[in-house]
Amino acid sequence: MSRMHLLNQSNGQTFEGFCIIKGIAVRSNSKGNPYLDLVLADGEGEGVAKLWDYSRELHGEYNVEDIVKVRGSIVLWKDAEQLKIERIRHVAPGDPVDLSTLIPCAPFDPSWLYDQLFALADTFSDDDIRRLVQYIMKEHREQLLIYPAAVKLHHATRGGLLHHTWDIVELAKSVLKVYPQLDSDLVYAGAILHDIGKLTELEAGPLGLAGTYSMEGQLLGHINIGVSEVAQTADLLGIPKETAVLLEHMLLSHHGQPEYGSPRFPMFPEAEVLSQLDLMDSRLYEMFAALEGIRPGGFTERMWALDNRQLYQHQHGKNENKQE
Amino acid sequence: MSRMHLLNQSNGQTFEGFCIIKGIAVRSNSKGNPYLDLVLADGEGEGVAKLWDYSRELHGEYNVEDIVKVRGSIVLWKDAEQLKIERIRHVAPGDPVDLSTLIPCAPFDPSWLYDQLFALADTFSDDDIRRLVQYIMKEHREQLLIYPAAVKLHHATRGGLLHHTWDIVELAKSVLKVYPQLDSDLVYAGAILHDIGKLTELEAGPLGLAGTYSMEGQLLGHINIGVSEVAQTADLLGIPKETAVLLEHMLLSHHGQPEYGSPRFPMFPEAEVLSQLDLMDSRLYEMFAALEGIRPGGFTERMWALDNRQLYQHQHGKNENKQE
Amino acid sequence: MSRMHLLNQSNGQTFEGFCIIKGIAVRSNSKGNPYLDLVLADGEGEGVAKLWDYSRELHGEYNVEDIVKVRGSIVLWKDAEQLKIERIRHVAPGDPVDLSTLIPCAPFDPSWLYDQLFALADTFSDDDIRRLVQYIMKEHREQLLIYPAAVKLHHATRGGLLHHTWDIVELAKSVLKVYPQLDSDLVYAGAILHDIGKLTELEAGPLGLAGTYSMEGQLLGHINIGVSEVAQTADLLGIPKETAVLLEHMLLSHHGQPEYGSPRFPMFPEAEVLSQLDLMDSRLYEMFAALEGIRPGGFTERMWALDNRQLYQHQHGKNENKQE
Amino acid sequence: MSRMHLLNQSNGQTFEGFCIIKGIAVRSNSKGNPYLDLVLADGEGEGVAKLWDYSRELHGEYNVEDIVKVRGSIVLWKDAEQLKIERIRHVAPGDPVDLSTLIPCAPFDPSWLYDQLFALADTFSDDDIRRLVQYIMKEHREQLLIYPAAVKLHHATRGGLLHHTWDIVELAKSVLKVYPQLDSDLVYAGAILHDIGKLTELEAGPLGLAGTYSMEGQLLGHINIGVSEVAQTADLLGIPKETAVLLEHMLLSHHGQPEYGSPRFPMFPEAEVLSQLDLMDSRLYEMFAALEGIRPGGFTERMWALDNRQLYQHQHGKNENKQE
Amino acid sequence: MSRMHLLNQSNGQTFEGFCIIKGIAVRSNSKGNPYLDLVLADGEGEGVAKLWDYSRELHGEYNVEDIVKVRGSIVLWKDAEQLKIERIRHVAPGDPVDLSTLIPCAPFDPSWLYDQLFALADTFSDDDIRRLVQYIMKEHREQLLIYPAAVKLHHATRGGLLHHTWDIVELAKSVLKVYPQLDSDLVYAGAILHDIGKLTELEAGPLGLAGTYSMEGQLLGHINIGVSEVAQTADLLGIPKETAVLLEHMLLSHHGQPEYGSPRFPMFPEAEVLSQLDLMDSRLYEMFAALEGIRPGGFTERMWALDNRQLYQHQHGKNENKQE
Amino acid sequence: MSRMHLLNQSNGQTFEGFCIIKGIAVRSNSKGNPYLDLVLADGEGEGVAKLWDYSRELHGEYNVEDIVKVRGSIVLWKDAEQLKIERIRHVAPGDPVDLSTLIPCAPFDPSWLYDQLFALADTFSDDDIRRLVQYIMKEHREQLLIYPAAVKLHHATRGGLLHHTWDIVELAKSVLKVYPQLDSDLVYAGAILHDIGKLTELEAGPLGLAGTYSMEGQLLGHINIGVSEVAQTADLLGIPKETAVLLEHMLLSHHGQPEYGSPRFPMFPEAEVLSQLDLMDSRLYEMFAALEGIRPGGFTERMWALDNRQLYQHQHGKNENKQE
Repeated sequence: MSRMHLLNQSNGQTFEGFCIIKGIAVRSNSKGNPYLDLVLADGEGEGVAKLWDYSRELHGEYNVEDIVKVRGSIVLWKDAEQLKIERIRHVAPGDPVDLSTLIPCAPFDPSWLYDQLFALADTFSDDDIRRLVQYIMKEHREQLLIYPAAVKLHHATRGGLLHHTWDIVELAKSVLKVYPQLDSDLVYAGAILHDIGKLTELEAGPLGLAGTYSMEGQLLGHINIGVSEVAQTADLLGIPKETAVLLEHMLLSHHGQPEYGSPRFPMFPEAEVLSQLDLMDSRLYEMFAALEGIRPGGFTERMWALDNRQLYQHQHGKNENKQE
Repeated sequence: MSRMHLLNQSNGQTFEGFCIIKGIAVRSNSKGNPYLDLVLADGEGEGVAKLWDYSRELHGEYNVEDIVKVRGSIVLWKDAEQLKIERIRHVAPGDPVDLSTLIPCAPFDPSWLYDQLFALADTFSDDDIRRLVQYIMKEHREQLLIYPAAVKLHHATRGGLLHHTWDIVELAKSVLKVYPQLDSDLVYAGAILHDIGKLTELEAGPLGLAGTYSMEGQLLGHINIGVSEVAQTADLLGIPKETAVLLEHMLLSHHGQPEYGSPRFPMFPEAEVLSQLDLMDSRLYEMFAALEGIRPGGFTERMWALDNRQLYQHQHGKNENKQE
Repeated sequence: MSRMHLLNQSNGQTFEGFCIIKGIAVRSNSKGNPYLDLVLADGEGEGVAKLWDYSRELHGEYNVEDIVKVRGSIVLWKDAEQLKIERIRHVAPGDPVDLSTLIPCAPFDPSWLYDQLFALADTFSDDDIRRLVQYIMKEHREQLLIYPAAVKLHHATRGGLLHHTWDIVELAKSVLKVYPQLDSDLVYAGAILHDIGKLTELEAGPLGLAGTYSMEGQLLGHINIGVSEVAQTADLLGIPKETAVLLEHMLLSHHGQPEYGSPRFPMFPEAEVLSQLDLMDSRLYEMFAALEGIRPGGFTERMWALDNRQLYQHQHGKNENKQE
Repeated sequence: MSRMHLLNQSNGQTFEGFCIIKGIAVRSNSKGNPYLDLVLADGEGEGVAKLWDYSRELHGEYNVEDIVKVRGSIVLWKDAEQLKIERIRHVAPGDPVDLSTLIPCAPFDPSWLYDQLFALADTFSDDDIRRLVQYIMKEHREQLLIYPAAVKLHHATRGGLLHHTWDIVELAKSVLKVYPQLDSDLVYAGAILHDIGKLTELEAGPLGLAGTYSMEGQLLGHINIGVSEVAQTADLLGIPKETAVLLEHMLLSHHGQPEYGSPRFPMFPEAEVLSQLDLMDSRLYEMFAALEGIRPGGFTERMWALDNRQLYQHQHGKNENKQE
Repeated sequence: MSRMHLLNQSNGQTFEGFCIIKGIAVRSNSKGNPYLDLVLADGEGEGVAKLWDYSRELHGEYNVEDIVKVRGSIVLWKDAEQLKIERIRHVAPGDPVDLSTLIPCAPFDPSWLYDQLFALADTFSDDDIRRLVQYIMKEHREQLLIYPAAVKLHHATRGGLLHHTWDIVELAKSVLKVYPQLDSDLVYAGAILHDIGKLTELEAGPLGLAGTYSMEGQLLGHINIGVSEVAQTADLLGIPKETAVLLEHMLLSHHGQPEYGSPRFPMFPEAEVLSQLDLMDSRLYEMFAALEGIRPGGFTERMWALDNRQLYQHQHGKNENKQE
Repeated sequence: MSRMHLLNQSNGQTFEGFCIIKGIAVRSNSKGNPYLDLVLADGEGEGVAKLWDYSRELHGEYNVEDIVKVRGSIVLWKDAEQLKIERIRHVAPGDPVDLSTLIPCAPFDPSWLYDQLFALADTFSDDDIRRLVQYIMKEHREQLLIYPAAVKLHHATRGGLLHHTWDIVELAKSVLKVYPQLDSDLVYAGAILHDIGKLTELEAGPLGLAGTYSMEGQLLGHINIGVSEVAQTADLLGIPKETAVLLEHMLLSHHGQPEYGSPRFPMFPEAEVLSQLDLMDSRLYEMFAALEGIRPGGFTERMWALDNRQLYQHQHGKNENKQE
């Protein structure tokens, strides 16, 4: 874990600024006085902090994922930095806080992504598919604007689910050009809906970071939850059976094969395309994340989720690319 | 294929009785006169039949799976028996026809099985589960009374789905006795609902024999179809979420593992029991079917669906059992 | 590890009662005086104990698995309870000690189970099978009354092997009812004999807890050992070859498939039934053991031996069942 | 096999035009006179043909894959059309023959594809990669203009290898846009070189249709052959070791995993992209080929090479797409 | 099937000599007269033969695998040679018949092989192992002199089991030299005993050709049968337990892994050596058999039992080798 | 780790002799004075050493893998021995140092092995193969004399690669005798060349111990590197194509199957022999290494690389063998 942005900004002795509470407990010191034992974090790192002589009345109440403004000084404790807090308060309207410096965020504005995808649906030739997609998007607008695509930190960013969806839509463009026989409505609708079940499978807090899986998510999985939702919505909106079944199949098969969670292999080309692009985007995201911080010429550890391979950080074309 | 019951009953030269049309075509003979080219069948065998000088007005129209009464004589054509039909008509109300002699039927009366299972639900402690199970049973009553459990002939009998369900309920009784920690409502409800998606997955004719899979069946599979139906019905009836999810999970996991079509392994004991009893009943059914007709001391062919094993027809205890 | 029953019973400062020695060593303290360093245990927990100034003549000699009566006081050492022993002696005839409070025991009296199973063999139609089963049961009576079914603690209880056998016999009853074509002699005899090789494979102490595998067990496995014993006994008793081979095959195939240790798949229905019921009983035992101590609504850790699944502790029907 | 274009064009009784010899033998009729027994083909079908009273001096010599001009009449022989040839000659310069009507050809002009890809290499930032790619392209120019990508007919077209390469380059464009961290030189060079070993692995005739594998192809495979060629060429041209090894790895890993022929998984993102796009293009090509001729609403046979799945011919968006 | 040696020897019109009956039936011709319909064979081929006007009294009775002397003439029937038999009789003592010209035989004299192996046991350091091996060899001497190692024709020759055993002993010599830590007694004893269960598993006729598997062979397999026999014999001879278990383990594990029939992997080096040499010998035998008849530069068909590979008939060193 | 030979030789208080530097760092003590912090090692063990008041000018500079002569005394630090160095210098010509007591060495003199293998090539019938093998051997002479066969300590010894090669040649002798159809040139040449790519794949220091894999080794693997080198050398020397391809195939397939790194299964008998003997030698080496230090009657830990089996240290024949 790197050092917090908050401390890097500071003069090295005192600090003041915004951060997030990642862990919190009320404890007693050896004299029996209560204090707050905190883990604070921002977009660059984490740190341990103490608020001595804590009083609920005086300092207020705090929970995990709260954004707070803190002031204090840096002390050394057993060779490690510790933050001694002097002041703490909840973030308030009007505070000049930039969420993207506090938590990992997708590199696009979620509202913009949402609007782009909603507008894409407007261009569909098939009005049934448009109605279905836009209905579900509207139903889940609030969640979509913040939800990540996964629980584990390096996969998960605020707005990560929309970001992943958008990537697939972008990747699909070449494929639709090379294979004009493909039905673009199905490909785009499949892309937008394919992970919709994750909004139920994951339990994300207000910051858009998923801490855990829901009971429903564990017992049923996002694929099954998504298929059921599409089936039920199609029923509600009177979508023709064949159209609904095609989209349900695309969701059902988008992990590509049974051992990855799809009881059906993709059975028509548009389903195959969705499944492959989903893999392409998640695989490349993971690979670039794993290579972050590896020196040129170095290898990552063996990656269990990538068939135990080690990745190589080559230096080829790195200079040119940076100039782009 | 053995000889039809119809012919075995007859005097060897003429015949009269009920059978089913398994294949039918209108053709022309060398003189251009139309005739009906038929494959007729009953519970014991099949035969080729001809109705010469066929006239739709005179003889009526016929389709596959129609039950008919026929009269005619047996002729030899290229060393094989052929039925020359003189009279044919549709079965009529009041005809003394016993369906179980015409097609393979489950060895229990489907109405009795249906009533037994419906009554079993009455005994549930949990009223939500009772409502859900009985609602779905009522919705599908007509189909349940005839549907088979599979397409392939030797798995499939009229009423076979209810028969299979009933077996699981019976097998569960010992398990519930040995493991009183199990919730019997879940086990019995899971048994009754587990293959409900087959009513959509298979396309069975009015006789309860499934000729093929539906488009929805092929693209989604009976597991997924069943889960969606339970989810939608639970919504409709206001069943508590946890209860609904438990039952959906039991359907989802009842094939035991991903490579057999269940994206989730059974995650609580009742789901495990359902999955194991489903395997037990289908496996034993197949084994006894395969052993039928094998002489004592002989082996079946290698059975692809049973890990390529050959089954042995031992003679042990056969005499005593027959007396039981 | 929880706290010992012995301490929970006590007044919190001194204790007196029965327990088992799980670990023992003679050591010297800093002054060179010998002391006994012990791990004591009973059915609820374990604890570290010291007998200072140990003298073999005075206090006697002790080994692992000895049952002893101890008296002493509870002291704190580095924040943990330690038992300072003042008196220790071996259990004596007439001591009011209840073994089932000291070690995990099967929930049935092993003698009763043995008699039930022996009596079941009396009912066999086939006298050869009866002779074979009863001969082997008699040969191993002493071991059967105490042997566990496995090494690992949560699978293994005093009398656990008979308990597991009994469960299979009970589970078989529904199966024999649903499939009357099955030969009950074979099913019951297979159940009684299937794990007989474990008496050689495991090295269980006098308390019926298996500490380890024997050299023969590791190199040959209980399946092979059991098959050889049945073959040799059948030879001795003049059992017809076919009968002996059927039973040997049932033992050989009872793990269901090669990767689980059975070089043959079950090749007749009775062998299939035995294999499935063996899996059913061991699987459910493990599942309920894993769920013990999980709060309602919680999940277990991933279980490696169960295909890495997590189990869910649902709350359904828990109240009603307790009343049964 | 459909009817030849040659016959469909004709007046039904006589024909005249160009076709290819797919099978040829000199035989004798019952009187001992020699005749040519031919299988002729063009882009639409095949037919059996006879040239009676064949004389090498008079009619010339012919081999499989020769393009010929034939004239003759259509006769019926055992209910099938047979071509009675009156005149035959080799194609001659200036003949108005369009190769694409005679054999399956890629839907792009191979020269144009070659020039496009060669020009693409001109844009590389890295001059070493440019030199390597263009050297190998020049070395194999003649073969590249005609070689197919595979042996089996429906995968293989004249110029198919360049067509497949071109598709991958096109598909890569979106990927490079979504992931600007990728080095485009490596991706494009990998695409152009990845199947270069097929020019040695396959034995293609002058028409660009591969009849079989070479001995070297069978014993080493196109992946290994290609890697060796890149290694040797890099040596010759003095390409830096790291650059050469990166490209060799991309060839080595482009089948994605050991069981598909790649002893290494892709170990950097550009290699992963190449491997996934290669799969995407070959998979979609096969799927559309399999769906050709399936009626709307129908399913293909189970496809062994696609994990035994059946493909569904949906009707969605078919009308709109045709208008594009 | 090639032409029989019997016919190749003859003058082309009549023949006289020894052969084996591979198929036999008594039939009636169109006039109702009985005749013998035979398939005769010798080491080079098979042929169809007829003995018209067959009379049991006159010609004697014959069964499959009987060796007979026949005389007759060659006639053509539907373009194929048929043997018209004039005289037939059973082989008689003193007949100059060479069995190795009639059936496939191992290229060593079985008696010599048996004596070599028996003498090898005499050299063992461990007298227990010597006693065990020689006891079992003596018990089965008659069978060992003729038994094949497998059912399928091209694996199976008269004396093939001893031949295979001998090869392993020969192959072991280098291994024992390179690894002097190995115990040669165990390696040689394991080699001699490893397939002893095949004498029960296979049902070989008096000629040493196995037509089929026995019931015991199918239900238990030769590995299990062999282990049981070693266990029982060791008991009988009072062999020390450890010695017996080591040998039983070597038999149990000699197929190397569970999916090939060994429930245990080899767990000490001598067992590993046995398992690898068994594979080496059977694999090479199969490969050379498959390559027989393939032209230089050609490939065999895909071989299912060898992971679907095709074998290449290279020409390298073929000339030199022949001179050796 | 055992105690160093250096210390075992000494009088227990002071020591003097040769060893190798395995780890080295210059550090400062609490007063700021520099000292050398060393890990020293010899063939029997490792130890921590300190050279206080280190001065580069006075004591010289040292690196990992340097051989040094040291003198000093043994002190106790936190219950462990530490070496206090008084004198240190680099090994000098004429020093009586025996490398084989300092590092694990193959039990044969590498020069002798090299000469034996080179002389073996002189006996080849095929002069092309001889030229190719001897050319490559000469090219790599310096490396071959020291290179190990693997990175991990217990597989890797100075000269280990030649040792492994020699074992295979020795093992091949019996195989060539049992199967005279094999071409011995191919088998021996394959043995000598099969791991030649390891000289590039591994980065071994001057002592012949491989610390790590090279970048080329990780991205391409020794199989591919070796095949490319053989291809390139064959080109250079004008070796006939077929000969070169046969040898390349033997290298390519010597790991036996795709999941072990060979994209082709062995496709002719000589390639199969090489692959099996390579497995035999590496497997037995690993097994004996794992059994080292296991008491008679004991088992090793489960060995992940050997399918998780545990090995048994039997006592059979151990006495006799030692006398040999």
